[in-house]
Amino acid sequence: MKIAFIGLGNMGGPMARNLLKAGHALTVFDVVQRNVDAMVALGAVAAGSAKHAAAEGELVITMLPSSPHVKSVYLGEDGVLAGARSGIPLIDSSTIDPHSAREVAAAAHTHGNPMADAPVSGGTGGAEAGTLTFMVGADPALFEFIRPILAQMGKNIVHCGGTGTGQVAKICNNMLLGISMIGVAEAMNLGASLGIEPKILAGIINTSSGRCWSSDTYNPYPGVTDNAPAARGYTGGFGTDLMLKDLGLATDAAKQAKQSVAMGAMAQQLYQLWSAQGAGGQDFSSIINLLKKPS
Amino acid sequence: MKIAFIGLGNMGGPMARNLLKAGHALTVFDVVQRNVDAMVALGAVAAGSAKHAAAEGELVITMLPSSPHVKSVYLGEDGVLAGARSGIPLIDSSTIDPHSAREVAAAAHTHGNPMADAPVSGGTGGAEAGTLTFMVGADPALFEFIRPILAQMGKNIVHCGGTGTGQVAKICNNMLLGISMIGVAEAMNLGASLGIEPKILAGIINTSSGRCWSSDTYNPYPGVTDNAPAARGYTGGFGTDLMLKDLGLATDAAKQAKQSVAMGAMAQQLYQLWSAQGAGGQDFSSIINLLKKPS
Amino acid sequence: MKIAFIGLGNMGGPMARNLLKAGHALTVFDVVQRNVDAMVALGAVAAGSAKHAAAEGELVITMLPSSPHVKSVYLGEDGVLAGARSGIPLIDSSTIDPHSAREVAAAAHTHGNPMADAPVSGGTGGAEAGTLTFMVGADPALFEFIRPILAQMGKNIVHCGGTGTGQVAKICNNMLLGISMIGVAEAMNLGASLGIEPKILAGIINTSSGRCWSSDTYNPYPGVTDNAPAARGYTGGFGTDLMLKDLGLATDAAKQAKQSVAMGAMAQQLYQLWSAQGAGGQDFSSIINLLKKPS
Amino acid sequence: MKIAFIGLGNMGGPMARNLLKAGHALTVFDVVQRNVDAMVALGAVAAGSAKHAAAEGELVITMLPSSPHVKSVYLGEDGVLAGARSGIPLIDSSTIDPHSAREVAAAAHTHGNPMADAPVSGGTGGAEAGTLTFMVGADPALFEFIRPILAQMGKNIVHCGGTGTGQVAKICNNMLLGISMIGVAEAMNLGASLGIEPKILAGIINTSSGRCWSSDTYNPYPGVTDNAPAARGYTGGFGTDLMLKDLGLATDAAKQAKQSVAMGAMAQQLYQLWSAQGAGGQDFSSIINLLKKPS
Repeated sequence: MKIAFIGLGNMGGPMARNLLKAGHALTVFDVVQRNVDAMVALGAVAAGSAKHAAAEGELVITMLPSSPHVKSVYLGEDGVLAGARSGIPLIDSSTIDPHSAREVAAAAHTHGNPMADAPVSGGTGGAEAGTLTFMVGADPALFEFIRPILAQMGKNIVHCGGTGTGQVAKICNNMLLGISMIGVAEAMNLGASLGIEPKILAGIINTSSGRCWSSDTYNPYPGVTDNAPAARGYTGGFGTDLMLKDLGLATDAAKQAKQSVAMGAMAQQLYQLWSAQGAGGQDFSSIINLLKKPS
Repeated sequence: MKIAFIGLGNMGGPMARNLLKAGHALTVFDVVQRNVDAMVALGAVAAGSAKHAAAEGELVITMLPSSPHVKSVYLGEDGVLAGARSGIPLIDSSTIDPHSAREVAAAAHTHGNPMADAPVSGGTGGAEAGTLTFMVGADPALFEFIRPILAQMGKNIVHCGGTGTGQVAKICNNMLLGISMIGVAEAMNLGASLGIEPKILAGIINTSSGRCWSSDTYNPYPGVTDNAPAARGYTGGFGTDLMLKDLGLATDAAKQAKQSVAMGAMAQQLYQLWSAQGAGGQDFSSIINLLKKPS
Repeated sequence: MKIAFIGLGNMGGPMARNLLKAGHALTVFDVVQRNVDAMVALGAVAAGSAKHAAAEGELVITMLPSSPHVKSVYLGEDGVLAGARSGIPLIDSSTIDPHSAREVAAAAHTHGNPMADAPVSGGTGGAEAGTLTFMVGADPALFEFIRPILAQMGKNIVHCGGTGTGQVAKICNNMLLGISMIGVAEAMNLGASLGIEPKILAGIINTSSGRCWSSDTYNPYPGVTDNAPAARGYTGGFGTDLMLKDLGLATDAAKQAKQSVAMGAMAQQLYQLWSAQGAGGQDFSSIINLLKKPS
Repeated sequence: MKIAFIGLGNMGGPMARNLLKAGHALTVFDVVQRNVDAMVALGAVAAGSAKHAAAEGELVITMLPSSPHVKSVYLGEDGVLAGARSGIPLIDSSTIDPHSAREVAAAAHTHGNPMADAPVSGGTGGAEAGTLTFMVGADPALFEFIRPILAQMGKNIVHCGGTGTGQVAKICNNMLLGISMIGVAEAMNLGASLGIEPKILAGIINTSSGRCWSSDTYNPYPGVTDNAPAARGYTGGFGTDLMLKDLGLATDAAKQAKQSVAMGAMAQQLYQLWSAQGAGGQDFSSIINLLKKPS
């Protein structure tokens, strides 16, 4: 299929490469020329703007850093809607607030383009391996149409409901993740300072009611999970500042929905403290060190 | 074996019955005569005090509501240590703070009695079915000795380390549980108010990084988990006030250990609010209703 | 002076009346016709749009509910900048985020109009009595020029610094107020439940290091401050939902500034809980009832 | 008058000296011999135990670090009650939890001794200058009797109500203080990072609804209050660990009273974090540096 791919950064780059490998013809655009060049070297065609890229596609996929970028790339003068032929489906894989996602999708709809929000989880590792999870907000027909293409970049393609629900699923899951990680950090720290062996404590939690991904797969206490960031000085993984971004989206959405998220807001503040102490680039599980009593 | 069993309430009663069924000879004591009578009707022998009960046992098991009860039952004039022969092992299955557990165990040790702390999880259902989890703090030799007896009352018998670590494991796990449950409640409420179907959201979380027992086994949102308290008006299960007790133990222990537990403390305050609004006797997952925007 | 006044709601209406009383000639605009009619009855001239009102003024004053309104009223096709003659000073008395205030002021500056942000405190009572406090962000020359006009609507006219600092002062003060009020509520509730007479406790706090406006002037505990909202069932005063709006502005600004405001965020969540329980229209000091143990 | 004074540390030492200066005959006891020697050098008589000191007094005053000390000094074998003649009034100036204060007072009452709790504020500076505030829980007759003696060590002698209310007033005030200080820190940090001059912001707050002792008398932002600890690197003043102790007493008392203190608990956790980062000995207003974004 002829696909327009816009946004070729750490995530978009490997995603686009997997589409090339799968045999699609890509027209690409990115504000960073180096990212474009790398993709052209692999057989993609460069376009001079989002508009020109979109004009070449039977399908448009975007992967951008934040909501203002998405608005400008879709709604701007040289944007996707100005270029895409009517009827061409659009997929935005950026993580943004559900409100903006719905606003852009409504504009696309008016323009005659069905649009899906399809944020991902799985990080750069998942993008490269083609094992991302896609959380998709789209009409059923659109979902069925795009599912096989997404499956060339990921391994779990989940239909979350109508427009915007992909974003909703992503921020709700990540808010819970941010809370659980601090909960695990506090439980592990408390246990260790009260004299239980951390690995034994984790083992008990992992077979009890405290069981969670942050404990059994990604434990923040060094020496508990073999391949977690805690085993390599909190490098790699999912950065504190990325978690902070998602908690910002979640608490903003909660404010608009007039929904109390006391723990989510507290988590946001604690990651903010930790980021301000210089740990924005470390894996988010390093938050355990903000809370740990020095030994 | 001749076992002295002290404390025959909602948990201790069924635990003692399982020991009778397993063929042990029980001498029992409780301050509530009715509880004693019920056990005598099943073949136990009544004693007039903890001291007299302990004097009859080759092993002493206690199941009491709180730390002051444990101290008085063990250290009082008519208490266990005043009656138990030297060398007889003691098991306390109460949930109390690790500091008090260690204090009582040290007094027992001085008196010549090895002592284990062995708090349980699994609730009254687990006590009756004999499927409790025991978290045991004890020397290895003592653990090996008591393991088969505990196995007649439970199905997971976990060795957590030396004295007090059973309590540590219990309060750390339950603090994390209390936090996770609020996290799930906030995520489910937020998702629902932003338009995603709760059951779909839970499905996504349960296969993603937000996955936890509070979401996949005990989801607080009605209609998501078939047999959870949320499916029956938050009756049964683990009461808000019991969660509040455990969070009180955890934050107290954290204070003594000079360990920050910001989320644990916040969870304690939210369950306190909810209890004050009249929900102390409802299952703790009902906290979702404190946080839910009225529809 | 010929003044264009735009936004004639609960606050703007009485402010405009005070300017009429002071002898100014007002051209007014509001989207609610009834508000316009009331002002015309007092001698003002009605304009058909913000643009037309602005075209008639030697000074423009706006009083609007939120940041999107301010952007649209200033920057829209029929907006203030489209109508105001170059050089005419602009004053926005809305409470909005500092970032938006600076964005609009920059656009005004480009258009040749000096602009001040001048949010107020003092409520509708202060607006009617002409005793508002104005917190003004403006260049010194502009501040000196507008000070006498503001003094016809208020009694404290405070220069906070350059553009945007009026908004900064307002949200910082109100965030602290929102926190202090909950702090006082918790202290009063705790004291009362521990057996001290509330009025005596307040007296001690008011002469000690806990002293604050929320305790000595506006105490939330009934029977402590004679004329506070607590003395009249939490009617009148400053509504929970208004406090919630200001805490939303403060936490948003903190997010952009990457500044941790843990207590501010917690306050926001507690007022959100309280609002969801139906108290959005009550004075914000009624938050004491969210936290109070039922007696 | 012949006064027994027990506990001659940083606070008790200067208090006892002021009583000597006022002409009283002191019999003193402390576990640290050096403290006793210093007082003997000034004319006091040393006793070998709390019991022996109490036996010599027509009035007993104690100043001890914590609740276990108070219980042991009053109720122990060599304690005050074992020595004091019946009818002799007892004053405890320690800061402890109200529950323990009432327990000890009840034991004293049974023994025939009226007892007052009279914790102080004002720090070592106030103790030396004789300008302490005493918050007194006592029957009216006892209060009238001890007031003149307390007035020789302090300048504000406040009657808070019956037994225990002195402690209640102290912990409620200090909990509010701990909350307000963080609130001021957050407001000042936020304002500064949004571009308002800190001294101007403080000036506005101090004449507005955010006004409080932490802002107008003890501002944590350097350069705002001339003589506050912030002006001298957070030395002197009231240490982070002392604030932490008082917040621990307040949250414990709240737990027993089943009263939610969400902000008080959060403040406790933040001071705990700050103490763990090494600032336990700094003035508590240094908490601003935990929250401040590095510039």
